Amino acid sequence: MELWYTENQTPNVKFSMKVKSHLYAEKSPFQEIEVIDTYEFGRVLVIDGWTMVTEKDEFIYHEMITHVALSTNPDIKKVLVIGAGDGGTVRELTRYETIEKIDMVEIDEVVVKASKEFLPFTAGKLDDPRVNLYFEDGIKFVEGKVNQYDLIIVDSTDPIGPGEGLFTVEFYNNCFKALTEKGILVNQGESPYYPNNSREMKRAYSKLKKIFPICEAYQYHMPTYASGHWLFGFASKTLHPIKDFNAANFEKRGLKTKYYNTNIHVGAFALPNYVLEQLNSEE
Amino acid sequence: MELWYTENQTPNVKFSMKVKSHLYAEKSPFQEIEVIDTYEFGRVLVIDGWTMVTEKDEFIYHEMITHVALSTNPDIKKVLVIGAGDGGTVRELTRYETIEKIDMVEIDEVVVKASKEFLPFTAGKLDDPRVNLYFEDGIKFVEGKVNQYDLIIVDSTDPIGPGEGLFTVEFYNNCFKALTEKGILVNQGESPYYPNNSREMKRAYSKLKKIFPICEAYQYHMPTYASGHWLFGFASKTLHPIKDFNAANFEKRGLKTKYYNTNIHVGAFALPNYVLEQLNSEE
Repeated sequence: MELWYTENQTPNVKFSMKVKSHLYAEKSPFQEIEVIDTYEFGRVLVIDGWTMVTEKDEFIYHEMITHVALSTNPDIKKVLVIGAGDGGTVRELTRYETIEKIDMVEIDEVVVKASKEFLPFTAGKLDDPRVNLYFEDGIKFVEGKVNQYDLIIVDSTDPIGPGEGLFTVEFYNNCFKALTEKGILVNQGESPYYPNNSREMKRAYSKLKKIFPICEAYQYHMPTYASGHWLFGFASKTLHPIKDFNAANFEKRGLKTKYYNTNIHVGAFALPNYVLEQLNSEE
Repeated sequence: MELWYTENQTPNVKFSMKVKSHLYAEKSPFQEIEVIDTYEFGRVLVIDGWTMVTEKDEFIYHEMITHVALSTNPDIKKVLVIGAGDGGTVRELTRYETIEKIDMVEIDEVVVKASKEFLPFTAGKLDDPRVNLYFEDGIKFVEGKVNQYDLIIVDSTDPIGPGEGLFTVEFYNNCFKALTEKGILVNQGESPYYPNNSREMKRAYSKLKKIFPICEAYQYHMPTYASGHWLFGFASKTLHPIKDFNAANFEKRGLKTKYYNTNIHVGAFALPNYVLEQLNSEE
């Protein structure tokens, strides 16, 4: 028997992976979490029917959500990560010796448990002594925090289910306050191609733009996410991701990366016209 | 009944589009040509089971295969297009008043016939008086031509079936000779992600590198091609796509584009490390 996992990327588009074995399924209070092993993508974490992480291309997502901010401000010491239960974002952050503290707030402990067991390639650094794991609502966690983080990474699912509150003005306002003077916020910025994604992309970006003096978006090629064309938002109080970027910030560290490099850093901010038009349209 | 068209992107990956209607199917001496109408992508040209053109995102492919070369050398007057039976590449070229002659060589007349009937959005400019249509083998067509074209665009299918000879050293050598002193060759450069594509990407690139003094690759986001991450090759006798590029070359023309812009021009040449490693590995 052939097993296939199919993601309904839109009501009219399906993406299917041939499955070696179905390794894990559990219903948490928040969502349904599954892990499969596939022929093309290795192990895959699926939440509520959506592909979250694949062994084959998670490096793209996790390198791009971290190294752009760290190369813009090499003095980042205190980081808050919201979501990111698979651990991949934390893995990349722990490669920076200069980072002193990583608070990771994941609402769903079951995601972390499953990732530790089945996705060691992403979850392997969650035990780093600098990492503090909080199984709480990230929205509540940032409330009232002032001047505490140099970087906040919102590594969330799409704005449906538990991720929804992470796409609100109130939440972004609280992040702004929680950030230090040179603070940067990077968020999962959705995708410009299919209407269900691009609507959320525009909503999130237009809200960030009202709050942060500097607000940009950068793109990356993520083959296992719908359309393969995805963005991160870069919102900042003072630092600009291009003007304040110095390639030496990254080069001097000697980190080996598979996707990110200092040319990509700059090139990723060059967006197609049809994306710019959406981002600059009024909501 | 629900109709779905499924592309087998690899033996382990399927991509499916919901179909409104099956408009056309014909077997030419070279290949099987079909046109469907879909809910998400509008009309779609499928050849031998592979998606060639969709109404929704053909602009990305056709803008990127043309404007990069034309903005590097604004004096391009004589162009040879090989393949490109849907007409989209010619449509973009005809927007340049400074182009005097476009020879288009498509081996399969049936593709052009089908495109004229069902894909007027790409094929609508094939009647431009500067366009000379040849239904011949492009490989033979370039043989013996010397110093005749400022730009050759190899807008081919994957190197299986009739497109295969367009990925050989002999063919690229003939193109080199057919080009003028400032000549540029742009070719469909395949994709770095799935092994069936990346093998061809490396093969084509390593051959071009041996023949052309300047050989680069640039990427674009093409959601309806496998992985969404695709490249064009840029091979040239003297002009470099970044060093010799001047944004004014494009800006002064006042062309409206949906994907290409002068930032993308530069940004597209910034390739991820895992792509660079493949392109720089010896074949």
